[in-house]
Amino acid sequence: MKLWDKGIGIDKKIEQFTVGNDREIDIHIAKYDVQASLAHAKMLAKIGIITNNELAQLTEGLHQLTQQIEEGTFVIDSQFEDVHSKIEYELTQQYGEVGKKIHTARSRNDQVLVALQLYYKNNLEVIHQKTTTLFNTLLQLAEQYQTQLLPGYTHLQVAMPSSFGLWFSAYAELLIDDLYLVQAGIKTVDQNPLGSAAGYGSSFPIDREFTTQELNFSSLKYNVVAAQLSRGKSERTVSMIVGSLANTLARFAMDICLYMSQNFGFISFPDALTTGSSIMPHKKNPDVFELIRGKCNKIQALYSETILLTNNLPSGYHRDYQLLKENIIQAFEDLKDVLDVFDYAIQQIIIKDIDLNDDKYTYLFTVDNINTLVENGMPFREAYRKIGDEVSNGTYIPITSKKHTHIGSIHNLGLDKIREKFNLIN
Amino acid sequence: MKLWDKGIGIDKKIEQFTVGNDREIDIHIAKYDVQASLAHAKMLAKIGIITNNELAQLTEGLHQLTQQIEEGTFVIDSQFEDVHSKIEYELTQQYGEVGKKIHTARSRNDQVLVALQLYYKNNLEVIHQKTTTLFNTLLQLAEQYQTQLLPGYTHLQVAMPSSFGLWFSAYAELLIDDLYLVQAGIKTVDQNPLGSAAGYGSSFPIDREFTTQELNFSSLKYNVVAAQLSRGKSERTVSMIVGSLANTLARFAMDICLYMSQNFGFISFPDALTTGSSIMPHKKNPDVFELIRGKCNKIQALYSETILLTNNLPSGYHRDYQLLKENIIQAFEDLKDVLDVFDYAIQQIIIKDIDLNDDKYTYLFTVDNINTLVENGMPFREAYRKIGDEVSNGTYIPITSKKHTHIGSIHNLGLDKIREKFNLIN
Amino acid sequence: MKLWDKGIGIDKKIEQFTVGNDREIDIHIAKYDVQASLAHAKMLAKIGIITNNELAQLTEGLHQLTQQIEEGTFVIDSQFEDVHSKIEYELTQQYGEVGKKIHTARSRNDQVLVALQLYYKNNLEVIHQKTTTLFNTLLQLAEQYQTQLLPGYTHLQVAMPSSFGLWFSAYAELLIDDLYLVQAGIKTVDQNPLGSAAGYGSSFPIDREFTTQELNFSSLKYNVVAAQLSRGKSERTVSMIVGSLANTLARFAMDICLYMSQNFGFISFPDALTTGSSIMPHKKNPDVFELIRGKCNKIQALYSETILLTNNLPSGYHRDYQLLKENIIQAFEDLKDVLDVFDYAIQQIIIKDIDLNDDKYTYLFTVDNINTLVENGMPFREAYRKIGDEVSNGTYIPITSKKHTHIGSIHNLGLDKIREKFNLIN
Amino acid sequence: MKLWDKGIGIDKKIEQFTVGNDREIDIHIAKYDVQASLAHAKMLAKIGIITNNELAQLTEGLHQLTQQIEEGTFVIDSQFEDVHSKIEYELTQQYGEVGKKIHTARSRNDQVLVALQLYYKNNLEVIHQKTTTLFNTLLQLAEQYQTQLLPGYTHLQVAMPSSFGLWFSAYAELLIDDLYLVQAGIKTVDQNPLGSAAGYGSSFPIDREFTTQELNFSSLKYNVVAAQLSRGKSERTVSMIVGSLANTLARFAMDICLYMSQNFGFISFPDALTTGSSIMPHKKNPDVFELIRGKCNKIQALYSETILLTNNLPSGYHRDYQLLKENIIQAFEDLKDVLDVFDYAIQQIIIKDIDLNDDKYTYLFTVDNINTLVENGMPFREAYRKIGDEVSNGTYIPITSKKHTHIGSIHNLGLDKIREKFNLIN
Repeated sequence: MKLWDKGIGIDKKIEQFTVGNDREIDIHIAKYDVQASLAHAKMLAKIGIITNNELAQLTEGLHQLTQQIEEGTFVIDSQFEDVHSKIEYELTQQYGEVGKKIHTARSRNDQVLVALQLYYKNNLEVIHQKTTTLFNTLLQLAEQYQTQLLPGYTHLQVAMPSSFGLWFSAYAELLIDDLYLVQAGIKTVDQNPLGSAAGYGSSFPIDREFTTQELNFSSLKYNVVAAQLSRGKSERTVSMIVGSLANTLARFAMDICLYMSQNFGFISFPDALTTGSSIMPHKKNPDVFELIRGKCNKIQALYSETILLTNNLPSGYHRDYQLLKENIIQAFEDLKDVLDVFDYAIQQIIIKDIDLNDDKYTYLFTVDNINTLVENGMPFREAYRKIGDEVSNGTYIPITSKKHTHIGSIHNLGLDKIREKFNLIN
Repeated sequence: MKLWDKGIGIDKKIEQFTVGNDREIDIHIAKYDVQASLAHAKMLAKIGIITNNELAQLTEGLHQLTQQIEEGTFVIDSQFEDVHSKIEYELTQQYGEVGKKIHTARSRNDQVLVALQLYYKNNLEVIHQKTTTLFNTLLQLAEQYQTQLLPGYTHLQVAMPSSFGLWFSAYAELLIDDLYLVQAGIKTVDQNPLGSAAGYGSSFPIDREFTTQELNFSSLKYNVVAAQLSRGKSERTVSMIVGSLANTLARFAMDICLYMSQNFGFISFPDALTTGSSIMPHKKNPDVFELIRGKCNKIQALYSETILLTNNLPSGYHRDYQLLKENIIQAFEDLKDVLDVFDYAIQQIIIKDIDLNDDKYTYLFTVDNINTLVENGMPFREAYRKIGDEVSNGTYIPITSKKHTHIGSIHNLGLDKIREKFNLIN
Repeated sequence: MKLWDKGIGIDKKIEQFTVGNDREIDIHIAKYDVQASLAHAKMLAKIGIITNNELAQLTEGLHQLTQQIEEGTFVIDSQFEDVHSKIEYELTQQYGEVGKKIHTARSRNDQVLVALQLYYKNNLEVIHQKTTTLFNTLLQLAEQYQTQLLPGYTHLQVAMPSSFGLWFSAYAELLIDDLYLVQAGIKTVDQNPLGSAAGYGSSFPIDREFTTQELNFSSLKYNVVAAQLSRGKSERTVSMIVGSLANTLARFAMDICLYMSQNFGFISFPDALTTGSSIMPHKKNPDVFELIRGKCNKIQALYSETILLTNNLPSGYHRDYQLLKENIIQAFEDLKDVLDVFDYAIQQIIIKDIDLNDDKYTYLFTVDNINTLVENGMPFREAYRKIGDEVSNGTYIPITSKKHTHIGSIHNLGLDKIREKFNLIN
Repeated sequence: MKLWDKGIGIDKKIEQFTVGNDREIDIHIAKYDVQASLAHAKMLAKIGIITNNELAQLTEGLHQLTQQIEEGTFVIDSQFEDVHSKIEYELTQQYGEVGKKIHTARSRNDQVLVALQLYYKNNLEVIHQKTTTLFNTLLQLAEQYQTQLLPGYTHLQVAMPSSFGLWFSAYAELLIDDLYLVQAGIKTVDQNPLGSAAGYGSSFPIDREFTTQELNFSSLKYNVVAAQLSRGKSERTVSMIVGSLANTLARFAMDICLYMSQNFGFISFPDALTTGSSIMPHKKNPDVFELIRGKCNKIQALYSETILLTNNLPSGYHRDYQLLKENIIQAFEDLKDVLDVFDYAIQQIIIKDIDLNDDKYTYLFTVDNINTLVENGMPFREAYRKIGDEVSNGTYIPITSKKHTHIGSIHNLGLDKIREKFNLIN
C-alpha cells in the first residue's frame, strides 16, 4: 500500500481524518457528559436494568471523573476517539462488567446531543449574566456622562447634537433585544433529548421524565426523531443568538475605534489598553476594541457554517454533525472573553471635551433653529427653507440652548425606563 | 455631458440608481406609514403643534389613503421617490398648509423605521398563525398514520424502525422551537421607535408614550440612538427568525423529495401536486416541495445580506439601509406562501405500504434483538457482539414484535405532551 | 375546495408558486434562448432531423423574435410559464408542425443552461470592459493628484504620509486581481452545455461541436452530467467573481464616505451628486457612494444564496435551481450600473487642501525621522526608541522633506508598471 | 484591581485576548517568514543598510531557523506574541546588534503579508497537484467502468440511463473549472507585497524588484496601499477558490453517501473505509465521505467569515486582520487532507451490478422510445404523447438497445477531449 506524503500510514491518516480535533474539543463537554451519564445510570437502576450496587459503583467512578475534570487533570489520550469512549473505558477499567452496562439504552448520538445541550444551556446563562454586568456598566457610564455632548452623525456627516449619555445607553438598550433571543435560545436547548438513542428511541422501558428532572431540564424534546433533528438546528439557533450579541458589540467597538481616531478625538484609553507599532513610536492603537470587533464578526459568521453543514441533509444522523462542535464551542469561549474584556475596558474610557463651537460642528443645531420658528407658528416646510437659506448665505446663527424634553432624548435619557424593561426580560 | 450607454441622461440614471425599487416595495408598508402618520398627527394635536381642525383634515385624508391601499388603487407614481413623499404630497394637494405640517417633529428615518417595525410585527404574528395551522395539520397526520412503520436511517443507512407518526410529529415539535424565536422577534419589534427623528430625537415636546399607545406597541425603544441603531439590527434578527422556520420546512421538504424517489417509494402525491417533464412522459416530479426547499433556502440566505449591509458601519443612519427593505419583505411574502402551500400539500400526501420484510430492511431490528438479550441479563456490550456475529454469519433472525413504551417513541408518540408544550409558547 | 386567504383558488396559487417571477426574469435571457434555438435548429437540419425548408421557417420565426426582443416589444404573457414555452408556442402558431419539432433532442434543462451561460459570458465581458474604463479613470486621477498628500492611517490612527495619487492607484491596481477572476469566470462559462438534454444526453446523433461553433463557445462541457452539475456551480462561481469586484468598490466607497465627513474633510462632490435631508437643511450627503457600497454588499451576499440553494443536493436537476436566476441576473444588472455610476461620479471628486501642519497630523513623519537616523548609522531599534522618547517628552520635530524613492511609493507611483500588468490580463 | 473569574490577572487576560492562537498558527507560516527575511536582508545589504558580514550572520541564523522548522523543533514560546518577534529575538540573541537591524525598512504588517502570500501561493500549487492526481484517478475509473449503467435521476426521480463512466468523468471535468479559479488565485497572490511596510511604503531606498526576484514572485503588488488592502482581499479570494473545489468534492461525496444507501445500493466500500455504530452491530457507515462532505462545507463557509472580518473597514491596517489567518490556514490543511483521502478512498470503490429490469427502473428508457419514433418521422411532441399514453395504460415496452453517439454521452465519454482541456489549464 502506498504511503502518504507526510510519511504516515494510510490507516493512521484515515483515523486522524475521522477523529479530527475531538479530543481537544470534548474537554469542554466532558463534565456535561459525566452529568448525563450519572442521570442515565440512576434511571437504569430505577427501571431495574442495573442494580443499586452497580449504580453505586458507577456513581463513584463518575464522581471521580468529575473531580479530575474540575481539577484540570482529565485528559483524552490518543487511544480514544472522543470523550464518550474514554469515560466508558475508565469505568470498565475500574469496575469491570458494570462499565459495559452503562451504554445500555443509549447511543453515542444521544450522549453528545445531551452533553452539548447542557453545555449550550449553561453557557447561554453565563452569557446572560455577563451581559447583565455590561448593561449595568453602560447605564452607569450613561448617567456619569449624561451632560457631555457629542456630535451626532447621519451618513457620517455632522447632523444633530447627541451626547455620551445617549451613546452609552443606546448600546445598553440594544442588549435587551439580544437577551430576548438568549432567552428564546435557552428555551430551545432546555429540553431533554436523552432517550432518543440513535435517533429512533429505545425498546427499553426508559424513564425520560426521570432523567429530565435529574438533569434539571424544563421540558423534554419528546419526539426522538425531533431530538435527533435538533442536532444542527440547535447549533444554527444558538449561533445566530450569540451572533446577535456579537453584532451589538462589534458595532459599538466600531464607534469606539472611530471616535479614538485623531480626526474625531472624542475618547481615549489608558496606555495599558492600547498598543504600539513596530515601526511608528507615536502609535497608540485600539487593538483591544479592534479584536473585539473582529472576534464578534467571526462569531457572526458562524451561522453560515452551521447551516452549510446541515442544509438539505435528510433526517437522521450524519457524521458531518461531528464538525458542528468545534467552532460553536470556540464562539462561546470567545464571546465570554469578549464580554469580560469589553466590560473591563469600557470602564477605563477617557471622555474628552469636544468643542462644539468648532466650525465643522456649526450646523449641528439647524433643526433646533427650525423648531423654534415652528413653535412660533411657521409651518415646518417653510421654516426648513428659511434656515436653509440662512445656511446658504452665511447668516445662520445656531440656537444651542434648546432642551430636548421627550423620553429617550439628550436631556431625558429615561435610564430608569430602560432598566425596567431590562428587568422584565424572561 | 456624455450620455450613458442605455441612452438615458446621467441625471435620470443617478436618480434611478438612488430610488431603486422603492416605489414597488413601499406598497407593502404603505398602510403602516399611514397608520403611523395618523398617530403622529394625533400627538401633534395633543401637544398643540396643530389644531383639532387640522387634525380632522389630516385624519380624513389619511383614511382616504387607507381605503385606496385596501382597495389596491394606491400607486406610487414615478414623480415620487417613496411612499413617504407620496403621502405628504397627497395631503398637501388636498388640504394645503396643514399637509406641510405633518412632517413637524419627525424625519423620514423615523417614518420608515416605524412603518417597517409595524410591518414586521404584524407579519411575524401572521407567520405564528400560519405555523399554528401547519402544526395542527402535522399532529393530525401523526395521529392518523401512527401505526405505519417507516425505516429509520442514520448515515443514510438502514438503522432502526421509525414510523410516519414519529416523522410527522417530529417536524411539528421542531416548529415549537421556531416559534420561541418568533416570539422573541415580536418582542424586539414591538417597541415604538417613533420620535427618534433623524436618529437623535427632537427638541419638540413630543409625547412618545401617546404614539406608543395609539400604535398598540407594548413598549418604546426609548433611546433615540438605539431606535436608529435598530435599523439593520431588527432586519438581522427578523431574517434569522424567518430563516429558522425556513430551515425546518426545507429539511422536511428534503425528506419528502427523497421519500418520493422510486428508490424509497414511501410516499406519493396526487397528480395536481406534481409536474411532468418536457422530454420524459413518465415523470411525476415533486416540484412543489423542491420549490419550498429552494425558497426556504433563499430565506435562510437573507441573514448574510442583512449583516453585510450593516456590518462595521458606525452608528447613525446610512443610505445603505434603504436596501434592507426589498429582500426582507420578499422573504416574508414568500414564507407566508410557503406555509400555505405546505399545509395544503402535505394534507394530500399518499402514504404507501412499505414492506419491511424486504431484504434491505432486515437489520432494522438488530437493536431490538440486543435489547431482548440484555433484558434477559446479558451485559450490553456482550449482547451487541453476539448479534453482530449473527449478522456476520447469516444466522440473524429479527425480532419485530417489541413495543417501544417510553414517551416520544414509536408506540407512544406523546402528541398530547407536544401540544401542551406548543400551547405554552409565549 | 377551500379558498386561500387572498381569495385566489388553490390551483392558481400553486401555479403562481411554481412559476414565480420567471416571466419577468426570463426577459433578460430571451435573446440568448433564441440564439441557442437557432443554433440547435441548424444542427437538426445538418443531421437530417428537420429539412432545409423547415429550418428556413424556424430561422425566419426566430429572427422575428430577436427583433421583438431588441425593440422591447417581446412580452411573456401570463399564459406561459417561461420564455421557453413562449418561444415554442410562437413558432408553432406561425409555422405549425415544425414548431413542435424544434424541441427534438433537447430539454428545457438544456435550454436554460445554455441561455444562462451565454448571458453570463456576455455580461462578464461587459463587466470587464466597464472595469477597464474605471481603471483608466483611476490611473488618470492618480496622475492628476499625485503630489497631493493625504494622511495615512493604521488602526484608524494617524500613521504615515500617503497621497491621493497612492489612494486612487491602489484601487486601480486591485481591480487587476478582480479581473483575473473575471477571466477565470469567462473560461468557466465559455463551454457549451447544449446537448446535455435532461442531464443525461440524447440518443439522437446530435453534433455538439457544430452548435459550439455556431454559438461561438471556446469549448464544450463535454460530459452531459457535468453540464447539468454546472447549473448552480456556475452561479456559485460567477457570484463570487462579481462579489470580488463588488468588494473592491464597496471598500473604496467606504473610504470616500469617511473622507467626506467633516472630521476628515479630505474630499467633496458637487451638489448634483449629493443629497439633502428631510429635516436638516444643511446636509450634503454622499448617498450615491453609500448606495454603491450597499449594492456592492448585497452583491457580495449573493454567494451565500447560491450555495445554500444547491448545497448537499445529489447530482441531477432539481427544481430549486429555477430560483438561482433571479438574484444573479439582478446582481449583474446592478454591478453594471454601479460601475457606470462610480466612473461618472469619481471624476467629479473635489480634492481639498489638507493642512498636514495641523496638530493632529504632527506624528505622520516619525518614521521618516527614524529612517534618517538609521541612514546616519544608528541601528533601527535604537533610532525607534530615540524618536519615541522625543514624542513622549515633546521635543519631536518632524522631518517632512524626505522623498520616497522605491517603486509604488508616494513619490514613485509606478503607474506605467501597473498599466503594464493590467494589459497582460488574460 | 479586580481579578477575573478564571483567576487570571487582568493583564494576563488582555494579553491572551490579543495574542490569541497566533503561536500555534504561525508555525505554518514560519518557513515563509524566514524566507522573506532572508530576501529582505540580502536587499538591505545590496542597498548598503547592512554590511556583507552582517548579511552573512543573518543568513546563517536564518538557515538555522529553517532547519529547526523543517525538523519540527521550532517552537514559539509563550514569551513571544508571534513568529516575527520570535525570529527577531533569536537573531539578536545570537548575533547581537545586527539582529536589531533586520527590521529596518519593513514593518510587521509587511512581514505577515509576504509570509501569508508565500504560504497561499505554495499551497495553491500543492492543491493544484493533488487535484491533478484525483483527476487522473477519476478518468481512470471512468474508463474502467464505462460500460456499467446507472439510473440517472432528475428531481430524485428515475429519469434516463446514465453510467458509472459518465458519473466519474463528470466530476473529473468539473475539477477543470475549479482549477481555472486556482490559477487565477495563484496570479493574485504571486505578487510581492514586501516593501509596503506599515502600508504606506518606506523612505529607505529599498529595491523591491530585487526581493521580488529573490522570492520568486512573478510580479509586484506595486502600490503600497494596494499591498496593504490585499490583506483580507487575498483571503476572500483564496477562500472562495478553495471553497469552489470543496463544493465539487462535497457534492460528489453526497452522491456517494446516497448511492451507498441500501435503497440505492449502487456502490460499496471495503470495511476499512466504513465505520460501525455504538448500538447497531450491522452498520457500515460512509463516515469518511460524510466527513469529506462536512469538511468541504466548512471550507465553503469560510468565505463569509473573511468578508465579515474586513467588510466596510476603511483602508489601512486594522488589528481585526490578525483573525483572518487561523481558519484559512486550517482550510488549506483540511483541503489537502480531503484531496488525499478522497483519492485514496475512491480507488477502493466497489461498483455493484444494478438490475435495470427492476420495476422501479422501467421508465428509464421512455426518451429512447420517443426518439425512435421521431427518427421514423413522427414529430417530437406527438411521439411524446404516444409514449406517455403507453405509460399510462401499461402497454409501454422499453427499448434498451439504443446507442448514444454524441460526444460526452454514455457510449462516447470523450475522455481524451476532457484530458486535453485539462492539459490546457493555465
